Formats: sequence, C-alpha cells, structure tokens
Amino acid sequence: MAKLVALYKKPADAAAFDAYYFGTHVPIAKKVPGLRSYEVSAGPVATPQGDSPYHLVAILSFDSADALQRALGSPEGQAAAGDLANFAQAGVELLIFESKDV
Amino acid sequence: MAKLVALYKKPADAAAFDAYYFGTHVPIAKKVPGLRSYEVSAGPVATPQGDSPYHLVAILSFDSADALQRALGSPEGQAAAGDLANFAQAGVELLIFESKDV
Repeated sequence: MAKLVALYKKPADAAAFDAYYFGTHVPIAKKVPGLRSYEVSAGPVATPQGDSPYHLVAILSFDSADALQRALGSPEGQAAAGDLANFAQAGVELLIFESKDV
Repeated sequence: MAKLVALYKKPADAAAFDAYYFGTHVPIAKKVPGLRSYEVSAGPVATPQGDSPYHLVAILSFDSADALQRALGSPEGQAAAGDLANFAQAGVELLIFESKDV
C-alpha cells in the first residue's frame, strides 16, 4: 500500500473550511485514479495532551507507490492539488509514503 | 473508527531508530488493547515536492474514540507512551481523532 496523509492547519473560519472541503474538495479528490480509500478525521484532531495545530487529517490509500505517483501526476490529481489553494490558506502538510502492516 | 497517527521527526541515527522501533517499540505497542491495525511507513516519508521532516509515520486504528481512549489509558498504552523517550528524542507528534470514510 501507499498513503498520502494531508494535515490541514486550523483555518480562520472552520465552518467555511468544512463546507468547502466536503462540498467541493472531496468530490474533486475522489476522482483521482487508483484511490482505494479516503478517510478523514471527524471532529477534533487532538493530541494525548489536548489541542493540536491541525483542523483536519485526511488519509488516502493507494495500492502502491507507483499508483500514488501516477495519481499525483494525473489530471485529476493535479486538479485536487490545485484546489488546495482555494481553502487551505492556513497551511497543509502532504506526506506520501509506502506503508506496511506490522 | 479512530486513529492515532505518530509522526516521528528524522533521528540523528536512522538505523538505530529503526532497530529500536521495529525490535522493541512495535512489540510493546502491539500489546495495546483494542488495536485493530498498525501500519507504518516503509521507506522515505516524502512530500510531493521532495523531502519531509519526518522519518517514519505510524497509523494505529481502533474501533472508536472510546476504544482509543481506553487504549491510551491502559497499562499497555502507558508503557508504549513511556517507551517513546527511549528512541524518539528527535521529536514525535501524536495525533488522535475519530475518522470516517468519505
């Protein structure tokens, strides 16, 4: 498997972020070829000690690193990446890696 | 579902980190009650632009936020948390959240 983890920093307007994220960004991102699962945080993103700097975490899964790279390079992947500027002004970290069960 | 995502910063000695992580920490963490799956990055943790500040990402899944909280509060969870000081000196971010498929 391979994962793309998106860590969205807390936005100025959380309600507006959520409306755009679920109403517009998710439908765009779900068109990415090779996407096997797409999980997002529901409710606060916390730490064991309390608050975190993040508003939302998304975990997108692909069959392999190659599939993930193809997805990122596809027109749909480019559209999803380009859409980030429309709602993630507070900042987003995108992490990509192969993964295995332990 | 609920997730604990651990983001480990790049250690001074990656080989020593990996030896401890897979040889000692994973066996401790796998004893945590309610743990449903435990995935870790295999190879580099990158960004779409290149390098990231992270050496390893772990994604631990639980049935619910309650199950995750019980896991963190259990003796096994406390042992896993306490073990972080033995190998994660470069820093680790722990994020906990409920998750849903979109």
